[in-house]
Amino acid sequence: MIKAGIIGGTGYTGVELLRLLAGHDQVEITVVTSRELAGTPIYKHFPNLRGHIDLAFSAPDTPLLAECDVVFYATPHAVAMHTVPALLEQGVRVIDLSADFRIQDIALWEQWYKTTHACPDLVAKAVYGLPEVNRAAIADAQLLAVPGCYPTAIQLGFLPLLENDLIDRQHLIADAKSGVSGAGRKAAEEFLLCEASESIRAYGVSGHRHHPEICQGLMRAAGAPVKLTFIPHLTPMIRGILATLYAPVKPGAEVTAEQLQSIFEARYATEPFVDVLPAGELPATRMVKGSNKCAISVSYIEDTDTIVVLSAEDNLVKGAAGQAIQSMNIMFGYAEKTGLQVIALSP
Amino acid sequence: MIKAGIIGGTGYTGVELLRLLAGHDQVEITVVTSRELAGTPIYKHFPNLRGHIDLAFSAPDTPLLAECDVVFYATPHAVAMHTVPALLEQGVRVIDLSADFRIQDIALWEQWYKTTHACPDLVAKAVYGLPEVNRAAIADAQLLAVPGCYPTAIQLGFLPLLENDLIDRQHLIADAKSGVSGAGRKAAEEFLLCEASESIRAYGVSGHRHHPEICQGLMRAAGAPVKLTFIPHLTPMIRGILATLYAPVKPGAEVTAEQLQSIFEARYATEPFVDVLPAGELPATRMVKGSNKCAISVSYIEDTDTIVVLSAEDNLVKGAAGQAIQSMNIMFGYAEKTGLQVIALSP
Amino acid sequence: MIKAGIIGGTGYTGVELLRLLAGHDQVEITVVTSRELAGTPIYKHFPNLRGHIDLAFSAPDTPLLAECDVVFYATPHAVAMHTVPALLEQGVRVIDLSADFRIQDIALWEQWYKTTHACPDLVAKAVYGLPEVNRAAIADAQLLAVPGCYPTAIQLGFLPLLENDLIDRQHLIADAKSGVSGAGRKAAEEFLLCEASESIRAYGVSGHRHHPEICQGLMRAAGAPVKLTFIPHLTPMIRGILATLYAPVKPGAEVTAEQLQSIFEARYATEPFVDVLPAGELPATRMVKGSNKCAISVSYIEDTDTIVVLSAEDNLVKGAAGQAIQSMNIMFGYAEKTGLQVIALSP
Amino acid sequence: MIKAGIIGGTGYTGVELLRLLAGHDQVEITVVTSRELAGTPIYKHFPNLRGHIDLAFSAPDTPLLAECDVVFYATPHAVAMHTVPALLEQGVRVIDLSADFRIQDIALWEQWYKTTHACPDLVAKAVYGLPEVNRAAIADAQLLAVPGCYPTAIQLGFLPLLENDLIDRQHLIADAKSGVSGAGRKAAEEFLLCEASESIRAYGVSGHRHHPEICQGLMRAAGAPVKLTFIPHLTPMIRGILATLYAPVKPGAEVTAEQLQSIFEARYATEPFVDVLPAGELPATRMVKGSNKCAISVSYIEDTDTIVVLSAEDNLVKGAAGQAIQSMNIMFGYAEKTGLQVIALSP
Repeated sequence: MIKAGIIGGTGYTGVELLRLLAGHDQVEITVVTSRELAGTPIYKHFPNLRGHIDLAFSAPDTPLLAECDVVFYATPHAVAMHTVPALLEQGVRVIDLSADFRIQDIALWEQWYKTTHACPDLVAKAVYGLPEVNRAAIADAQLLAVPGCYPTAIQLGFLPLLENDLIDRQHLIADAKSGVSGAGRKAAEEFLLCEASESIRAYGVSGHRHHPEICQGLMRAAGAPVKLTFIPHLTPMIRGILATLYAPVKPGAEVTAEQLQSIFEARYATEPFVDVLPAGELPATRMVKGSNKCAISVSYIEDTDTIVVLSAEDNLVKGAAGQAIQSMNIMFGYAEKTGLQVIALSP
Repeated sequence: MIKAGIIGGTGYTGVELLRLLAGHDQVEITVVTSRELAGTPIYKHFPNLRGHIDLAFSAPDTPLLAECDVVFYATPHAVAMHTVPALLEQGVRVIDLSADFRIQDIALWEQWYKTTHACPDLVAKAVYGLPEVNRAAIADAQLLAVPGCYPTAIQLGFLPLLENDLIDRQHLIADAKSGVSGAGRKAAEEFLLCEASESIRAYGVSGHRHHPEICQGLMRAAGAPVKLTFIPHLTPMIRGILATLYAPVKPGAEVTAEQLQSIFEARYATEPFVDVLPAGELPATRMVKGSNKCAISVSYIEDTDTIVVLSAEDNLVKGAAGQAIQSMNIMFGYAEKTGLQVIALSP
Repeated sequence: MIKAGIIGGTGYTGVELLRLLAGHDQVEITVVTSRELAGTPIYKHFPNLRGHIDLAFSAPDTPLLAECDVVFYATPHAVAMHTVPALLEQGVRVIDLSADFRIQDIALWEQWYKTTHACPDLVAKAVYGLPEVNRAAIADAQLLAVPGCYPTAIQLGFLPLLENDLIDRQHLIADAKSGVSGAGRKAAEEFLLCEASESIRAYGVSGHRHHPEICQGLMRAAGAPVKLTFIPHLTPMIRGILATLYAPVKPGAEVTAEQLQSIFEARYATEPFVDVLPAGELPATRMVKGSNKCAISVSYIEDTDTIVVLSAEDNLVKGAAGQAIQSMNIMFGYAEKTGLQVIALSP
Repeated sequence: MIKAGIIGGTGYTGVELLRLLAGHDQVEITVVTSRELAGTPIYKHFPNLRGHIDLAFSAPDTPLLAECDVVFYATPHAVAMHTVPALLEQGVRVIDLSADFRIQDIALWEQWYKTTHACPDLVAKAVYGLPEVNRAAIADAQLLAVPGCYPTAIQLGFLPLLENDLIDRQHLIADAKSGVSGAGRKAAEEFLLCEASESIRAYGVSGHRHHPEICQGLMRAAGAPVKLTFIPHLTPMIRGILATLYAPVKPGAEVTAEQLQSIFEARYATEPFVDVLPAGELPATRMVKGSNKCAISVSYIEDTDTIVVLSAEDNLVKGAAGQAIQSMNIMFGYAEKTGLQVIALSP
């Protein structure tokens, strides 16, 4: 049984951490901080937790954090980096769900997040928390950088193709569709029901903060440079990401649908949360709503010699809170599925 | 550990039973029947269950049913009554989620369901599975009639008022709003996304099958005749029922908001799945999405001397599958919350 | 051809006025003001108007307003009252879509809107712009108070019953369901897609600003005091109000469904925008999405001697902008349907 | 003033034709046929048309069709081809919104639609009704094949690039997102609100009937072979298509964002219903909901030397009924915008 704290737990990542940790029999949530809501019972902010989480929010300077075995940061970007060093020194293991420690190239990070990094030395020590590529390192991590929602869906979809050197790495395309919860619980006009429902639109065409993180991961897998066109879309639903990935087959290579299916199945055969669908089945985000699964299909379009991968996850679970807990389980030696056996809600 | 079977498990009640029972550590699901889908893996029909339920659908005449400790009927109305007697004779306990055994007045039932009841004698032996009024009888039940979704929300809201004789029983109004899943998984034009989203409408104004069931329960609570106007509404969301209940204060009686709050809190103080909200808070169906809770508020409108009760539940959980499992737990001596600690999904 | 201006045209009422007036062949829109967006092309804020409205927003102090024949206020409450007097003095006719001139009882208004009225003398001169009760007065109005969205749906539903003295006026209930656009285009957490979709909830149970306006109208129709319980609900859709109205038949009176149907049909026989549905048909808000119609059904529940009226409108059209234009047509002698023949969008 | 008839007007294309034609001052709708609903007032099936269209459905063999100047087919595929020849012989001009006359290669058509074409000779005489490429031919057409919804959005997006020979024609990608109304008004489980809302999924990955039609149009524009990967997605909204188009810049060519913007603006400068957005603005389907516009943006992704075009339309208007009426206006010499000035409904 470990003690866990959450910093900045008032957004959608926070409520998902709480929902999932409340059902984790090896974790006691001892503290949840919020500058604005300090003193307010958590259930007032998250009515679904009423009767399940009896804490009130604490102020961020609470000494309870230092007594935790693990602390999750569910803060906006450029917040965690200011207090992570102190927590680490106190022997607390840190799982950061924000972007502060995801990108190894500090200059690149600073360019995208438009601020100076407060502890660049720690970035090198941070472990990228994608269990499907990094399980061993995660086990020993003191500081874990949980991947973003788009990067998770897109990397898991491209990995088998890159690792097997099957595709033209210079012409990858990721057309990703995200539910509105990806924008967080912030009161902005564009995410009002009246603005965001009954419509779909692309955004970030001129550049998106997740792009360098995705490319970093793809290059690691490929062991070579990769060029990716990434277009995210705001989709009229609460949860879910569907990434439709396009990759031209490498010139000279020959692939078949059967071979691709086998490669994907083999790559993820022992992964508890990556589900390669049987040939001919395609994922929908509803299959994984509320669950920690990433459902993947791979298709070969013969006419254009193009591989199409569909990768569906719940952006708040496998794309955030669930993935963080999966890594926590690895870090503390629990069975990886502990607390994550939640079945997708359907309908 | 008991063996459970489900008859007719291809609809929304079926998938909810499976989702919840899969997480119940005292239940093994041994058989799920479907005439049309016999032989098909269950996950093909319910992709959210992939990796969680490895069975295929069985034909309805499977001998596996007789080996169960308990069998759930998730069939349309007027189906269960034909095979329940045989199962009971074989010593299987039956939990019927359809309407076949809910109404004690056989003539009334036959009038509403437009058919002759196949085993009227069993109706008298059936126990009405609303734990909040019938816990002791449920424990011994061989045949349980699980309440409908509207009847659950409406009865739980009115019970404290009727039991305390506070209201004019001749002028009750229940204005209920249900998500579209209440109509079941049937391919009818009116429930298409294009027809049912972005719109709200009343239906069944000239009469609804749940009306006699609700009145039967309210009269039992009141020990006297009750007159109820019940208007259900199709609401553009997947899950949830919100019942807005109006009751004039009994002529001559005096009530206060504080007194009503106390009465409701006392009535449900030990109920694990009825949550009387603190004074001033109002329920939303999102608070209970996917959970077995019924969240209730009570308000007193001084200007019109009227009591307004708001009662919110997930129609597929507390209004169907969750309630059935709650009773199953009682029947088999398990802790009542076993398998039902699921936290509402939010957002 | 008249010149029309709009003050505060950046919300949903504003965009509807512009959509409808752009199709009105007797109106030239010459000015639309916005303090915050002065100088910005209107289409940047309302992309649906691109190519249809070529103006930019003007600052509120623009002299163009005084040159208008009519000015619409689409401002929040307690704004119009500060500048309406000056416009009237300049001979401009004013149509106020806010609440400033709706309630004749100044003290009551000040209690609900928590401010001192800036021009109480003008309230008495303001004409309440519900054509179905006030057509003659509207024709001559210099200052028009357009009814709120809830008041329109609820008054039109109750009027025939009150005017014919058929119901117990002390026990009226209006259970109203509104789409989220009723909350306006304001960036508040509770109206985010992630918060407001897939859920329904009541609000304002302890009192709502539209209650005194509704009662004022009902009492005018009844010529006697009226008591109304009014519970509004936030419904997961963009547009539409459905008001479910309950009225006990007056003690001693006898009514029949046929008689009620005839009374409603007769009352609205010549009304261009009130559609009494044939007996047995019930309205849905989708029938009137984007149109200026209010669709009404009346039912008699014999069992409880209660009349149930269903009244559906588009809150932004018949409940706001369309109704304002309908009155404008009357004020300027145009055919009442001019510019309002828009057919509801379906699906 | 011309007389218009609609064959098979009971689906979403039918109701849109009726909504738009009812507001067209040069058209009298004289007959709407439906085998199943013959004799039923149209408004009973389409309540939004109540008070606007007073006809009842006629049986398909009605002699009224032959008296029309123009007849629209809003039938499923492989229906029109059986009766179009007779109508043409009677001098009626035909506008077919189904796929029967869209594909010039009869063998290809027969392969996709799995039936023998009933009048292959007429296919060669049919004019493809995309005004932006075919205006002159449309004017003289006796038989018009209205493009499908996906083909319209995708062709309009790629045309300027192909006509200017800027892209690698062998590696085009169209990732298209369609609202559920694209599936028509058919009672199928997968399009129920409970199945299709709150989820997004791809379909037709192994092949879609619109693919050959799209390629035929792209090749015509390019004057050369074209290879396209086309993946459609079912998006949880009623209306709208957003096509995200990816094209690698032609090897050796150099393009700039400014140049692309100019090319698109020039290509569609005089088109009344194609709106090239200003540089930096991106379309959303809500901008065009209910209107006949196609809103397009073009972006150049320097990092990957890829052009991304976003093309948004209402699938039922510019993607079906509105486009048909636009061509009808051209055929009968009316101003092209007649009856199509409808502004998108927003919010």
